[in-house]
Amino acid sequence: MSRWEPNARERLVRAAVESFLERGYDDVTVAEITERAGLTKRTFFRHFQDKREVLFAGQDILSGLLADAIAAAPESATPIEAISAALTATEAAMDADRREWAAKVQRVVAGQPDLRERELLKRAKLRGAMASALRARGVPDPAATLAAEIGGLAFTTAFARWVEPANERAFGELAQEALEELVKAAGALG
Amino acid sequence: MSRWEPNARERLVRAAVESFLERGYDDVTVAEITERAGLTKRTFFRHFQDKREVLFAGQDILSGLLADAIAAAPESATPIEAISAALTATEAAMDADRREWAAKVQRVVAGQPDLRERELLKRAKLRGAMASALRARGVPDPAATLAAEIGGLAFTTAFARWVEPANERAFGELAQEALEELVKAAGALG
Repeated sequence: MSRWEPNARERLVRAAVESFLERGYDDVTVAEITERAGLTKRTFFRHFQDKREVLFAGQDILSGLLADAIAAAPESATPIEAISAALTATEAAMDADRREWAAKVQRVVAGQPDLRERELLKRAKLRGAMASALRARGVPDPAATLAAEIGGLAFTTAFARWVEPANERAFGELAQEALEELVKAAGALG
Repeated sequence: MSRWEPNARERLVRAAVESFLERGYDDVTVAEITERAGLTKRTFFRHFQDKREVLFAGQDILSGLLADAIAAAPESATPIEAISAALTATEAAMDADRREWAAKVQRVVAGQPDLRERELLKRAKLRGAMASALRARGVPDPAATLAAEIGGLAFTTAFARWVEPANERAFGELAQEALEELVKAAGALG
């Protein structure tokens, strides 16, 4: 039976990211991460499949936030309005503390081709979740897929701008701005 | 020194796909594939990193065809016109023989979550190659990324329709149709 382990998931992510940055992703073992976090390997594997997954810990939560907000958007909302509501819904999770950690995770991911691949894949899945949520609202294809792709691009663009060292703007504001740019560019493509 | 091995790559792909369909992807070894193809394991590993890569053998060629055609499009071409030229350029590779094999590969990929992930990743890279080719023409972001995403969606949509058993239309025609649908949907999103 497991002890009560407050914030185990969060502690494991932080221990892992600090270790990766200090000693390099390849050389860090799960044993090292758990020791640093003061938790057991069993706890680690209850939360994550492997050390790689630690870096993408927030993605499933994010995917759920986006899909739920799309489902909850007013019936009258257009696909892009539903995507806009979804981006706003993620803002609560994007505070200053998270920004600091996101920047660190990005530094680890940028240095490893297989981690960059994993990130691409996670992004594709996130867009897939948004497209499914739009289809469930009755948005037909290709509009559902396209709106989800634009939502995904808006998120990625805003995220990159948000974690830039000099940035002082809030995530939600950057996301809405990126979405507007993309919708305008989409309209101009025809 | 290696013997001359005509069409080694093609023979390996066909032997692998037939074996995967007959005995299941997981149970087939590289040794079995090379035996069936009448080639050595050394030859196999000169062409492919592992048995998984055999299923995505055409993707690098495709990526090159798309990027080259974007680069070669007239200076006056809009991003979508360059994407349209790129889709047309792939048509030469999409004959009836390729269609039969593509349908088989798809049956293998559909049954394996890790192969479906690999496919998502390859698609993301293909879109990345198109976006880079557009940027090299001076198309700014987000238009370059967006046009490449639409090109990728047009390709994927056309491909799925092309391999349907009842389909009798050519790939190029399906691709242009899908592209038109997507551009129209993009214009309507704003």
